[in-house]
Amino acid sequence: METGAHRLGDERLRQQYEAAGFGGRVGWGERPALLVIDMAGAWTNPAEQLGSDLSQVLGAILKLLRVSREAGLPVFFTTMAYSSPAEIGSVVSRKLTSLTGMLMGSERVQLVPELARGPGEPLIVKPRPSAFFGTNLLSMLISAGVDTVVVTGCSTSGCIRATCESAFDLNLHVIVPAEAVGDRSPSAHAANLFDIDARYADVTSLEEVLAHLQARAPQPVSTSIS
Amino acid sequence: METGAHRLGDERLRQQYEAAGFGGRVGWGERPALLVIDMAGAWTNPAEQLGSDLSQVLGAILKLLRVSREAGLPVFFTTMAYSSPAEIGSVVSRKLTSLTGMLMGSERVQLVPELARGPGEPLIVKPRPSAFFGTNLLSMLISAGVDTVVVTGCSTSGCIRATCESAFDLNLHVIVPAEAVGDRSPSAHAANLFDIDARYADVTSLEEVLAHLQARAPQPVSTSIS
Amino acid sequence: METGAHRLGDERLRQQYEAAGFGGRVGWGERPALLVIDMAGAWTNPAEQLGSDLSQVLGAILKLLRVSREAGLPVFFTTMAYSSPAEIGSVVSRKLTSLTGMLMGSERVQLVPELARGPGEPLIVKPRPSAFFGTNLLSMLISAGVDTVVVTGCSTSGCIRATCESAFDLNLHVIVPAEAVGDRSPSAHAANLFDIDARYADVTSLEEVLAHLQARAPQPVSTSIS
Amino acid sequence: METGAHRLGDERLRQQYEAAGFGGRVGWGERPALLVIDMAGAWTNPAEQLGSDLSQVLGAILKLLRVSREAGLPVFFTTMAYSSPAEIGSVVSRKLTSLTGMLMGSERVQLVPELARGPGEPLIVKPRPSAFFGTNLLSMLISAGVDTVVVTGCSTSGCIRATCESAFDLNLHVIVPAEAVGDRSPSAHAANLFDIDARYADVTSLEEVLAHLQARAPQPVSTSIS
Repeated sequence: METGAHRLGDERLRQQYEAAGFGGRVGWGERPALLVIDMAGAWTNPAEQLGSDLSQVLGAILKLLRVSREAGLPVFFTTMAYSSPAEIGSVVSRKLTSLTGMLMGSERVQLVPELARGPGEPLIVKPRPSAFFGTNLLSMLISAGVDTVVVTGCSTSGCIRATCESAFDLNLHVIVPAEAVGDRSPSAHAANLFDIDARYADVTSLEEVLAHLQARAPQPVSTSIS
Repeated sequence: METGAHRLGDERLRQQYEAAGFGGRVGWGERPALLVIDMAGAWTNPAEQLGSDLSQVLGAILKLLRVSREAGLPVFFTTMAYSSPAEIGSVVSRKLTSLTGMLMGSERVQLVPELARGPGEPLIVKPRPSAFFGTNLLSMLISAGVDTVVVTGCSTSGCIRATCESAFDLNLHVIVPAEAVGDRSPSAHAANLFDIDARYADVTSLEEVLAHLQARAPQPVSTSIS
Repeated sequence: METGAHRLGDERLRQQYEAAGFGGRVGWGERPALLVIDMAGAWTNPAEQLGSDLSQVLGAILKLLRVSREAGLPVFFTTMAYSSPAEIGSVVSRKLTSLTGMLMGSERVQLVPELARGPGEPLIVKPRPSAFFGTNLLSMLISAGVDTVVVTGCSTSGCIRATCESAFDLNLHVIVPAEAVGDRSPSAHAANLFDIDARYADVTSLEEVLAHLQARAPQPVSTSIS
Repeated sequence: METGAHRLGDERLRQQYEAAGFGGRVGWGERPALLVIDMAGAWTNPAEQLGSDLSQVLGAILKLLRVSREAGLPVFFTTMAYSSPAEIGSVVSRKLTSLTGMLMGSERVQLVPELARGPGEPLIVKPRPSAFFGTNLLSMLISAGVDTVVVTGCSTSGCIRATCESAFDLNLHVIVPAEAVGDRSPSAHAANLFDIDARYADVTSLEEVLAHLQARAPQPVSTSIS
């Protein structure tokens, strides 16, 4: 596999990081799952405070969803929502002031309809950037025998990076298809994609990820999670 | 404060544990919160599979709620519920077969109405016995400046013990008013209350806890969690 | 597999728990690891404050170690030790007063020599009853592809139960060979073994566990952890 | 307090983030602690694979240490070290290949001597970028009643950012004195300091932090952690 690090960041920075032992290729494990992070109206609707145009990211995710479902792989979605300010807490709500508008049940925290979430595909309401913090995601992954997470969605500089780091900390293989993650800021996207590839995940092309998933023999959905 | 260990377990076991350095008195911290664990129909209705008669426990909790609210202390409730079997996972759903009936939104996972949960009192839907596992409870406690949790509800041998242990692990002071926790089995209740007192929490009388909370000057609800 | 619940607790309690949906059999996963909890002098030397005679438990563990090593299974050991009282914290050190004597590097926190820990068998210095709290154990298990933990050592009512619960919470399969866990108190041992079997783990006989492990084809140690 | 966001990043990016509700000022809580992250030879010696010249960062940290000790505030240090490759795990050791050389007890993982760590100042050996992952740090902070962490050390784009995010997730106030954190890459330092300020912490000047700490009345070290 081509090393993603060779395609990210400027030449000098890459060389410095390679010399320091960053950016090794981890590769795939044996049982991947697809994570779709925060593809809900609050982020995908450019008219929203946190929103930006993520239509191309959505297109890439839809391709990954089709292939993952055909292969019988576990799929997990996340969104962020709270029932009251007390659930967010003082520090978090002061730093990220838009969170107080993410009310549980409101339209803006609903997933984009095109994702067509199925009944066996859990929707995790996460309170923080990482999909692992304050949620039951890890238990679900272990139940499904997952050792590899394909991380997609938004935003590269926030929830994507945080989720990749959490998974990496746990020795889960982390794959990021570059076209399937997005950010409101192109410069924050680029800087964080470089860091993610150097430190936490293998950033690869959508094409490579699709090819890898398609090459897997179709699997019945594990009885473990049915 | 009288040591709860002196009132629990048989004499010989108590002496053995005291000699081994268990059962020290921790006492109260400065900022308590009240936790009400799983006082929902699935556990409080004797006709339910998991249910038993917890009317006396409920009575004790109502007294604690009144005093806590008058003192302006943070109050947190929990219940257990899942949207699908995938959220429980294979191991947990095989060991505790009744959990598959705990559907999100169903009547049996609703809190007992007498508790009269207020808008600033979070309801935490927990996936596991401990109120801390896979939830955002700890962040809420830290936001509210809490250093002491008064743990009440059910069941002593399951969710109460697990929640006490989690709080203790974090160096939170843990107070258990004996009359405010219950279990479907008297023997499991007694054995676990002994262990809780020896290892994780100060088990004291409801009267002592009420007196301690009433002696506190009324406090405005912290702006941190409003 | 015979249900362990049928051999634990009194008849009436067992029936009550079975009717309530506790004590389901989970069975083995595909990749077990052996955990040996706190078999160090502080607990195994009867002259120590926390100690009791665990020679029979040790004998059972040595059998499990032999079979596990022959099968190439991952093995993990734990002990408890602290460099200073600040590392324990105020609540924990007041409740469990013997912990302040568990100094890092002292003889009493060393593993029993008969265990003959090998270079590829990590020793985890855990700060709390559960081997998962405040340690890197889970990451190591995930790295080794483990989905099942065989939990052995001491004490049944403390670190064994806590470790079983943590593993269960994560949807790891948990197997407890009854003869390979021990406690200073026979009554606490019996009450907690019943709870462990009803709620968190399959408690089975040493013989069954040895037979299961021996039936596995010998495996090279995974390159994942070499 | 001047908002750090006004001094970080380019003008357009700042405006975009402010419009999206990022970068709110959280301010100080009531009980701060000083965290000194990874100021050990592996990072501070430019001849080391991971090393760079952090002498100015060290100078800033020494000023913060002096003031924190005079004020009786809790101080915590971290380093990274492992006893064997199995403790790192396959994914982490493949991505960050330099970690296999961080042997427990080796010279390169020792703290820089100028830090003069005192007996009541814990040294936390962390396995991952965040000082909270797989360690007992949070329990120690709760024991000491800490609600604010001043995060210093290296590297801005790795362990500093990860530690800030973990603390923020828990609703701890996080303060980063800009001169007291460093990175081998100036561009990664700048990009991550912007993200840290926008998302997780208040990035302020060393001068402001020193002034705030000096203005506090000297406090006896809490008996909680003595």
